[in-house]
Parts: sequence; structure tokens; C-alpha cells
Amino acid sequence: MLKGIPKIISPELLKILMEMGHGDELVIGDGNFPAASCARRLVRADGHGVPELLDAILKLFPLDPYVPAPVGLMAVVPGDTVQPVIWEEYRRIVERYDPKAAEPEFIERFAFYERAKQAYAIVATGEAALYANIILKKGVVVES
Amino acid sequence: MLKGIPKIISPELLKILMEMGHGDELVIGDGNFPAASCARRLVRADGHGVPELLDAILKLFPLDPYVPAPVGLMAVVPGDTVQPVIWEEYRRIVERYDPKAAEPEFIERFAFYERAKQAYAIVATGEAALYANIILKKGVVVES
Amino acid sequence: MLKGIPKIISPELLKILMEMGHGDELVIGDGNFPAASCARRLVRADGHGVPELLDAILKLFPLDPYVPAPVGLMAVVPGDTVQPVIWEEYRRIVERYDPKAAEPEFIERFAFYERAKQAYAIVATGEAALYANIILKKGVVVES
Amino acid sequence: MLKGIPKIISPELLKILMEMGHGDELVIGDGNFPAASCARRLVRADGHGVPELLDAILKLFPLDPYVPAPVGLMAVVPGDTVQPVIWEEYRRIVERYDPKAAEPEFIERFAFYERAKQAYAIVATGEAALYANIILKKGVVVES
Amino acid sequence: MLKGIPKIISPELLKILMEMGHGDELVIGDGNFPAASCARRLVRADGHGVPELLDAILKLFPLDPYVPAPVGLMAVVPGDTVQPVIWEEYRRIVERYDPKAAEPEFIERFAFYERAKQAYAIVATGEAALYANIILKKGVVVES
Amino acid sequence: MLKGIPKIISPELLKILMEMGHGDELVIGDGNFPAASCARRLVRADGHGVPELLDAILKLFPLDPYVPAPVGLMAVVPGDTVQPVIWEEYRRIVERYDPKAAEPEFIERFAFYERAKQAYAIVATGEAALYANIILKKGVVVES
Amino acid sequence: MLKGIPKIISPELLKILMEMGHGDELVIGDGNFPAASCARRLVRADGHGVPELLDAILKLFPLDPYVPAPVGLMAVVPGDTVQPVIWEEYRRIVERYDPKAAEPEFIERFAFYERAKQAYAIVATGEAALYANIILKKGVVVES
Amino acid sequence: MLKGIPKIISPELLKILMEMGHGDELVIGDGNFPAASCARRLVRADGHGVPELLDAILKLFPLDPYVPAPVGLMAVVPGDTVQPVIWEEYRRIVERYDPKAAEPEFIERFAFYERAKQAYAIVATGEAALYANIILKKGVVVES
Amino acid sequence: MLKGIPKIISPELLKILMEMGHGDELVIGDGNFPAASCARRLVRADGHGVPELLDAILKLFPLDPYVPAPVGLMAVVPGDTVQPVIWEEYRRIVERYDPKAAEPEFIERFAFYERAKQAYAIVATGEAALYANIILKKGVVVES
Amino acid sequence: MLKGIPKIISPELLKILMEMGHGDELVIGDGNFPAASCARRLVRADGHGVPELLDAILKLFPLDPYVPAPVGLMAVVPGDTVQPVIWEEYRRIVERYDPKAAEPEFIERFAFYERAKQAYAIVATGEAALYANIILKKGVVVES
Repeated sequence: MLKGIPKIISPELLKILMEMGHGDELVIGDGNFPAASCARRLVRADGHGVPELLDAILKLFPLDPYVPAPVGLMAVVPGDTVQPVIWEEYRRIVERYDPKAAEPEFIERFAFYERAKQAYAIVATGEAALYANIILKKGVVVES
Repeated sequence: MLKGIPKIISPELLKILMEMGHGDELVIGDGNFPAASCARRLVRADGHGVPELLDAILKLFPLDPYVPAPVGLMAVVPGDTVQPVIWEEYRRIVERYDPKAAEPEFIERFAFYERAKQAYAIVATGEAALYANIILKKGVVVES
Repeated sequence: MLKGIPKIISPELLKILMEMGHGDELVIGDGNFPAASCARRLVRADGHGVPELLDAILKLFPLDPYVPAPVGLMAVVPGDTVQPVIWEEYRRIVERYDPKAAEPEFIERFAFYERAKQAYAIVATGEAALYANIILKKGVVVES
Repeated sequence: MLKGIPKIISPELLKILMEMGHGDELVIGDGNFPAASCARRLVRADGHGVPELLDAILKLFPLDPYVPAPVGLMAVVPGDTVQPVIWEEYRRIVERYDPKAAEPEFIERFAFYERAKQAYAIVATGEAALYANIILKKGVVVES
Repeated sequence: MLKGIPKIISPELLKILMEMGHGDELVIGDGNFPAASCARRLVRADGHGVPELLDAILKLFPLDPYVPAPVGLMAVVPGDTVQPVIWEEYRRIVERYDPKAAEPEFIERFAFYERAKQAYAIVATGEAALYANIILKKGVVVES
Repeated sequence: MLKGIPKIISPELLKILMEMGHGDELVIGDGNFPAASCARRLVRADGHGVPELLDAILKLFPLDPYVPAPVGLMAVVPGDTVQPVIWEEYRRIVERYDPKAAEPEFIERFAFYERAKQAYAIVATGEAALYANIILKKGVVVES
Repeated sequence: MLKGIPKIISPELLKILMEMGHGDELVIGDGNFPAASCARRLVRADGHGVPELLDAILKLFPLDPYVPAPVGLMAVVPGDTVQPVIWEEYRRIVERYDPKAAEPEFIERFAFYERAKQAYAIVATGEAALYANIILKKGVVVES
Repeated sequence: MLKGIPKIISPELLKILMEMGHGDELVIGDGNFPAASCARRLVRADGHGVPELLDAILKLFPLDPYVPAPVGLMAVVPGDTVQPVIWEEYRRIVERYDPKAAEPEFIERFAFYERAKQAYAIVATGEAALYANIILKKGVVVES
Repeated sequence: MLKGIPKIISPELLKILMEMGHGDELVIGDGNFPAASCARRLVRADGHGVPELLDAILKLFPLDPYVPAPVGLMAVVPGDTVQPVIWEEYRRIVERYDPKAAEPEFIERFAFYERAKQAYAIVATGEAALYANIILKKGVVVES
Repeated sequence: MLKGIPKIISPELLKILMEMGHGDELVIGDGNFPAASCARRLVRADGHGVPELLDAILKLFPLDPYVPAPVGLMAVVPGDTVQPVIWEEYRRIVERYDPKAAEPEFIERFAFYERAKQAYAIVATGEAALYANIILKKGVVVES
């Protein structure tokens, strides 16, 4: 543990967030996401929900202002009647850090898997909500 | 995730619990425990408290009936005024699974480090309470 | 060994079952299946039959309700007169855990090999019956 | 699988048995034996009993005629009332292959662990019987 | 060394023969074969001839009855006047174990290299005869 | 790079600082320190001076309040006339973060090497000043 | 550290510069460059600016006289109003070592990423300036 | 060192020369050749010239009589006025071991790089002459 | 294979013989020697006898003239009636290469194991003769 | 190759020289030195003599002024009549770079081996002269 770093972020995850550069993508997968089969680099966060991880990550991680939507969600499979209420929570968290990034892109299930395979890393959580996977595209850290 | 396995247990931790045999020891370290420097096998559980991990582990893991105290705690350093209230919570959790094992052994700080270095594995948590480290000695699985 | 986990499942197999996510596939190969040459991840279960492994795995592993047939079998090669009586045993085992999944898909021999090469893992057994290979597609673990 | 090799022996175990030389020792541990923490080389045989493995191994593996007892068992801990009936089964199996080796040496529990740490390999089984661990010292293969 | 296993077979080769399944191929290369550059798995048997290895391998290794020719040889390069007398020796050895497999397939030199690159393993011998390379396709082990 | 993390800290160093626990030690070596031969874990920071690294690290890293002096310096070798003015700069930096830790312990050259070999990690800098090596003992992160 | 070698160059970077041959390319990425996701070989130089590294590298590293422009820069993305003043500094540094190489080639952002993926190595710096990435193509060392 | 083996050949190079088979290629690169970026297997011979290595290698290494030219050289780039006098020295060395192989094939620069990427190994020398790279195709060792 | 190198020597063995220096020891173990458990570096030569390997090795490998006996044999265990006739064959082979080294040192069985554990490498053969293990101490290669 | 770096120094050796710190030792072994069995880090320089390596290394590598003799040689074994004339050459080379270091320390043969085992690295050359091994203790690089 370190001063000022959220405890939910593991040393390995922190290293990976820091290694990423402009345009690299991070996936936070829910508990049913095939994270281990898709990931180039896999970080486990078993037992945690996505919202608390998302909140901790966005404290440190800038979103990409060069694309229309630096946040991506997995679209509901046609015919499935699930209503992912967790999306509203994601929107509120993103808005708190970067209001311009709050409107997500929706990505078809298998297209999401393909994009996850190209991501820099995937975080495997224990999130029980369905369709709770999220992609974040990293932006630029500017001198303050 | 699997049916009936607590979500807080990672695949790697489950594998390690299963590999352990009679007499092998597992340490669950709090967020300040020097887990990475002591561990033969290190399992990270950043952001989690010890009680919820202890509860999940004891669902699967038998304690050793061949020793007087299969549960060990780190004794408060002489001169330190901390009163670890979390110990009472541990006692209640252990009691629920194995009443005969509820009375722990207290181990001096540096002796605890030496024993941790001999343990089969150490779980590194984000537990904020002080003196919240615990050692579990594995027992025998008997046919039901 | 752990409380409540079938003894026939090795620590490594348990870890792999747990790492898999929605849509990932597991192959249980019979004793003549070219498991080592096809497998991305190989788990050995020498000396065991497929039915006892299948039964132990389905205690923990949900089948995919999003596809017509989450269970696949290798079709008999045209001209071969083998009658795989073990298939009936598989059907009874699957039915016990998931009645909607009991009707398998039949896959031509070389197409089966190609699909096995894409599977998350292959379990190599000592099953002596011919055409006793089986593919399982993982479903979703839901909160109980 | 190969012609004439018992199916219960895995490729890795067969390789290890073959690599061993005169005086090297093999431990077959029961399901509660701390195999992973003691082993220089660990071979898993989850779900199998010791007798069927012992029988298969002795088909291939000569016992050492240079020592009084090439077979060792773990002695019952003083105060424990267990009567290991499986020992009689071991005696019958060993006798079938090498009558002069049937009388075992008994080794105190912690001395057994130390000897297991020096063994060439340990086989981890799922044997449910208690005190079912056995050490075999390899002999010499002579030209036939 | 083990009882009943030919001494010429190394522990690693025995493991590899055992791991192979129905349809997997093994190449035994002569001393000039580019084994190290083609092999997925390389087993060295320097100083040995192919016939004694072939004989030892076929004691354990069934040939594939599902294809017209489970044995393949490298065809003489057009214009080369070599007469590989070793082929007759191969035929007699194969015939002893599996008369139906004695008639080999002849494979053009560069096609042979491509097929060797797909084989499960290549054994590199010290065979001095030219065109002495041989491919074996594994069959099925049936209960006796 | 991340928001709020000093740029001089590499991803690997940040991970290592976070993995360390109460009582673990970190050495920041000057450009002539035999870092690679002493280090259990080596982090390179070539071209940087020690003061800027020390300042960045102490933003995140608590010092140990359980020991009289959590900061150690290498004592000048008897007979050497060097006056390490950099020590005063270290004192000012430490004081800014933890006034109680500003008084360092002085450690004889070869005793310093032995302690560095036990440290969790060593950072190798390009600091040109002599006797500019420093040891930091990690403290406890408390909830804010 | 060695006599005559700039301190900012790490041992690993020096080794890599020396291993490179005629036509091989080196990328020095700014602090936001996705170095870790593009690099075949990654060298970290956190906290350093590109100009001081460029200057140190060109002391040792000849530029390729066989191509029109051995130095490449990332062109400003259309619509972006950044004016990279650092480019003028790069020009002065290159000119000092190799006047004929001072005129750079400009490479579109995503084409630059593709070329970086083919480069021999990427140096990840902490350079805060935007569009500060640079590619160097190695020339020939001639006898003096 | 061994009796009768030229001292300039390293243990690793000797092993690689021996592993190669009929048709495999070896590249000896000059000091500016991009050996590390092209090589499947890289052997360093820093500080040595190509002629003394070529001479030592041909003592042990037969050239391929099945192709018109088992020796290849990098053709001078059009427009370059270099006259590689070292080629005459190569011719004399090759002629001494295999007169029929003395006439080399000339390969365009980038085609040479592609062929080097397919070679079994590349030896990186310190040869200062330009266009001094050479490819050798291995022949057949026959019984003497 | 290479010109002039005995075919029975594998590429790895040749590399090891060449890496050894003055005073390093090589063990050639018979088929029952516990080579894999004693060896720092293990080279397999399954199926070969010791005499043909010894003869091939001594063509290349000088024996140490600085010690009274650079060749060591395992003494017969007291009480064992074996008469190792192979020793006479060893003497004749050694004498052919180095008459002054023909008189061996005899080493007690367990002392031989300890010395083998310190040897640079052990060659595991298939030699069927008992007490056929031999240690060779390397000498100095002098300019011819 | 790089501008100004002697070609005889390999990339790996350069990296190792640079990693070393004050007090670390480097051994340059002659062609008969047991370098591979003693070395913590082994660098091969087959075919080169020690004097040319020593000269190239001392261009970059400062010797330790804190000890009476930063250069060590292997003393002639009592009874051996060799007169190592190469020592005079070493003295002249060292004198050119550091006159105060020219007087070496003489170390008994087996004490030399023990010290070599503690050295940071050993360079294995092809030097034919006997007793040509040399140890260098690194000093301090000071700002110019």
C-alpha cells in the first residue's frame, strides 16, 4: 500500500496503468467475461465490483480526448431482455472525472471480444451484473 | 467463477488451497504485512479485508486437529497500545466452522515473520486494521 | 483436497475451470485423442474415464444457455461401424445438471480437432471407449 | 497411451520413473500428504488410490536389493488409534513383484516428511485412507 | 531404465510417444536430416541407427489403421542414383509389428520437410544411410 | 504516466514500492554503488540524482515509526576526507515528509553492503556525489 | 558507470545500441507514447527528456547515409493546433553530429505506430512535450 | 577448448554447426550486419574477422553439393562504388575445402536480409570490411 | 553431424566438453547410475555403452596431468561379489590416449555420488555392466 | 558496433562492465580456466587473447584506488616451472591506464578459484598462455 493510492488497485494493475500510453485500451471485465482467454495481459481483481475499480482507476487514468467516445460498453445481445442498470452508475462515475467522456460507444458482443483481444490489458473482476464489461481508451497526461 | 465457490477466492488461491496438505500453513496478511518479501508463494487479494477472505477460505479448508492451536495471530508489540478488535471477529468466524480451533496461538512479531517465510503461501490483502495477520494450519479432508 | 470439491478434479483443472468465462470451451478427450498436439492448455487426467470427470465438472461448471447445443460430440467417421454406447451415459449425466443441454451437437472428426485447438483447455483422460471426446461451452454464473 | 503401459501412469510419471537410478526414492502420497510443499518433482495423480498406482509402478520399477527394506511407510502418530488396513494390501502387491521386499520400514511422521523432501519425486494421489503414504527405493535393472 | 522398456528409448522419447494421440506423426530422421530446424519437439538419439530405434518404438507404438499408409519415406531426388537398401530393413521391421502397414508412402524431399514441420516430434539419429528418414502415424490403443 | 504520480518513478519502481510492507527496506544507490551485485530486486534509474528520487518516493512511501532511525546512510571510510554535502539535502527532504525521521543512522561501508543484500530492492541511480547511498525502512499506511 | 559513456544511458540501452546494425531503427518515445504496447524491445528512461537522450545516443550511434532521411518525426494530427517547438531542438542536436541528417521525414500518427512496432527497440522517456517522438535509423561504423 | 577444434569457435557455435542438417543455412555477418534483428539463433563473435571464422568453420562443415551455389554473398547496392576485395579471400578459403563450391551466388541486399531471417543461425562478427556477409548451405556428412 | 567429430557425441555434449576447464570433472554413468538426481548438467546418451563414449570423448578431451589420478572408478561395495571386467577395457582405452593416466583412483560408492554432485556434468548412458561409472578430470589444451 | 567502443568488447560485456560498481570484481580467464563452472555471469570471448581484452576494458573501466592492489594474478603452482612472460605485458597495459595499479597481488590457484566464484563476471577467452588469468577490481567513476 502507498499513500494516496486506492487500496483496491494492485501493484501489478498500477504498473500496467502507468505503462499504457495514448490510445492504449484497458478492459474491465465482469465476473462472466472470458478474460483469461482474451487477454494479452491479465490482471485479476476477483471479488470486486466494476464500479469501485472504475472509480479508483479514473483517479489516475486520463481518457482520450482525440476520439468521440473513449468509453465502450458491450451492447445487449438482440433478444435478450436484460436492462443493465449498472450503466447509469458507470456514467455518473465517468462524468465526475471527465464530463466530455460520459457518453459511451456500444459494441456488439463478438466485436467487443475482438477489441478486448487487442487491448493492452484486461482486469477480471467478480462483478455479478450482466453486460457490465467496459473499455477505457487512455488519453494524454499533461503537465500541471 | 464457478457454482458454489465464493467469488472472493481467485483461481490461483483456490488451486493453492487445494494443493496444500496436512500440516501446511497459509498466512493471510493485512495491508501492511511484508507479504512479498516473506512469501514462498504470493497470492494478491488487494482491496479485500481479512474477515471476508477467512470466511470464504474456511468453507473449503479444514483446520488441523493434531495441534493445540491451528490458528495463529501476531502478538501486539510490547509498548504498543493498539487493541485489535478484529481478533474477536476472527474468533467468531473460526468458531462457526470449527469450534475446537477458535482459541488462537499468539506469536511474537519477528517469530511470526519467520513462520510466514516457511508457510506454503501468503495472501496479501488490503485489510486496514493493524495486527490483523493470521496463520491457518491445514487439517485432513475425510470422506463424507 | 478441499471440502466439497470432487477428488478427481486436480488443482490445476479447478483453476482452469474457474478462469474460463462465458463462451469459452473445454474439451474432455478420450485416451486416444491427440490432446497434447491440439491443446492451448493441457490438463492430464490419466487413468480416469470421461463420465466420472464429466459428472464432477458439471457440479461446478454451468453450460451456455445462449447457444442451441452447449455440448458437442465427435461424429463417427463414415464407414466406421462403432456404436458409441457411452454417449447415452453422457446424456444422462448432462440431463441431471441441465436438462435443456442434453441434446448434443455432432461434429465431424477433423472439424472437432480444429475446434479443440481453439478451446480454452483440453483434459486428457484414459477413457478406453472410442468416440468418447466431448466439448462443453461454459455459461454464466448467476447470483443465488 | 502406449501398448503394454498401464493407463494410470501419466507420461510425466513414466519419464520420471525411467530417469531414476539405483538408490533414488519415490514417494506415493495419500490425498492429505503435503506433496506440493515437500516435492522436488511433483507428479499429480488426483482421484486415484495408492494401491492401483503401486501395482502399476512395480510392473516397471525394480526395488533395491542392497538395503534391508526398500519400502517405507509412515508410522501411526503415538496416541492416534487409526489402524491402517491398507498396509496389508500394499504388502500383497509388493510381494507379488518382489517377495524379499514385502517387509516395510516404519518411519516417524516428521522423519518421513524430511525423507520425502530428499526423494526424487512425489506422486500426489487422491487416496482417502489415512497413513497411506509409501516410499519406494529403486533398485537395479539387469539384462534379461 | 525400467523393466521391459528398450534401453535405446530415452525418458523424454518415451514421454513423447505416450503423449501422442490418434493421427499424430513422429519422424525419425537420419544423421543428415535438418531435425533441429524442422522440429516442434526435438528428441536427440545421436549415434544410433534408425532400424534399432524403429524396432524399439514399434514395440510400444500402434500404427494408424484409418489411413492407407501410416508409414512414409523420403523419395529419392530425381537424378540422384542412391538405392536406399535400408528401406527393405524398415519393411521387415514394420511387417513384424503390423503387416498391413508395411507398404510405405513415398514423399518428395521438400514435401517431406513440410510434413516434418507439422509432426508432433522428430527424433534425430546418427544414421549414416542416405534417404533413411521415416514418418510414423500413430494409431489407436485398444483394451486387451 | 499517470495523473499525480511523479514522472521520475518508473512503473516497475512504483509496483515495488507498493508491494513492500512494514519493515521492508529500500536502498537508493549512487552511481558507483554495486547495485547489480547486491540487489534482490534491481530497479535502474540511470542518469538521475538521488535527491529528486528521494523526494518523489517520500510522497508515496511512509517511514517506519517503530525504529529509532528509519533512514540509513553509508559512513565515510576512516581516512577518507570526503565531506558529503548531499547529506544535508537529504535531511531537508526527509524532514519535509516526516520530521521525526530526519536523524539518520550511519552504517559502516561493508555493513551497508550486507544490509543492502537483505533489502527488498535497490534503485541504481546516476548520482555523482560520493557516499550518497541511502536506506529507507517502510512504515505503515493508515486510513485517512 | 564507465569512463566516457554518458550517465543517462543505461547498461541495457547501451547493449541494445551496440547490437543494432545497418538499417535497424530506434524509437525514442515521449511520455505519452504507447511504448510498452508497440515495442519488440522496451527500454525505460522514465523522468528523462528526449533531447538529452538524443544527444547522448548520437555520440555513439551513426545515422544511415543510405536513405534520404535517417531521422523521422510524428506529424501533427490534422486539426490539432500544437506547434512542436522541440523539433527545432532536435534539428540542432542532429546537425551537430551529422549535418546531412538534419532534415527529418514526417510520418502520420498511425503509420508511425506501425513503424515503431517494426523497430529494433523503443526507449520510453518522461518527455512532457507533445509530438516529441523520434525514429533514428542506424548507419555504418567505419574504421577510423 | 578441445583437442583439434579451432579456438575461434565458441562452444555454442560448435553446437549449432553440429545441430544443422542438409540444406540448413548459416550466415556470417560483418560488423555492420543487423544480425540481432534478423537472427533465429544468434551467435556472437565480436572482434573477429570473417575470413578466420570461415576457415575454421569449413574445417568441420560440409557444403551442399545438391545446389549450384552453396555459398552466397551480398551484392553491392547499385550506385555504391565499394569494391569488396575480401570476396577474393573468401573464394580462396572455400576453394581449399571444396573447389566445386568456390563460385558464389550474389544476392540483392534486402533479399539477403530475408534469407538471413530464414537461416538456422547468424554469427555476428566484428569484420570491418563492407559487403563482407556470407551465407553457407550445409551439405551431407558421409562415412569415411 | 560434423566432419571429424564422432557421431556418438551429441551437440550438447560437445558444447559441454568444450566449456569445461582445467580441473573440471565429467562423470559417465552406467544405466543404473542416479544421474538425473546428482547432475548439475545432465546429458543423456541412452542406449550407448560407456566404452564407446569414453573412446570418443578422449579423442577431444585432455586428462589432467596435475593430479596423481585423473580417472576415477566406483569401488565395489564390500560384500558384493561383482568383478567389473569392463574396468580392463577402460584401462586400455585411456592408455591409448594418455598412458600416464591409465591407473585409476577407486572411490567408495557414496563418496562417488558426492563427487558426482560437484562434477561439471554427468552423461547418462545405457551401459548394462555394473560398477561401470567413471569420472574424468579435464587437463590443459596446449598449442600444437 | 558503436563509435568509439573497441570492437572486441561484445554488447553483453559492455553492459556488464557498466552494471558493475565500486568493489565489484571482473575475471578475465585464459583458455584453460574453468570459467563456466565458476562464473556467476559468464561472457565468452573465444579466440581472443587476454592482453587485447585487458587493453580494451581499461579504456572504460576504472581500477579501485581504495585497495593496495586492484589487479590480481594466479600464482604459479609450487613445483611448476612455467615462467609467465605475459605478466610483463599485463603490467605495461595496466601502467598505461593507472600507474598506481601496476603492481599485482598474487593469489594461490584454489584461492583464485574461490575468488572467481564471488566475482561479478568472468570473461572466457582463448588465451593460450598458461597462468594468464587476471582479476580486476572496479573503482569509482568521477565527474570530469
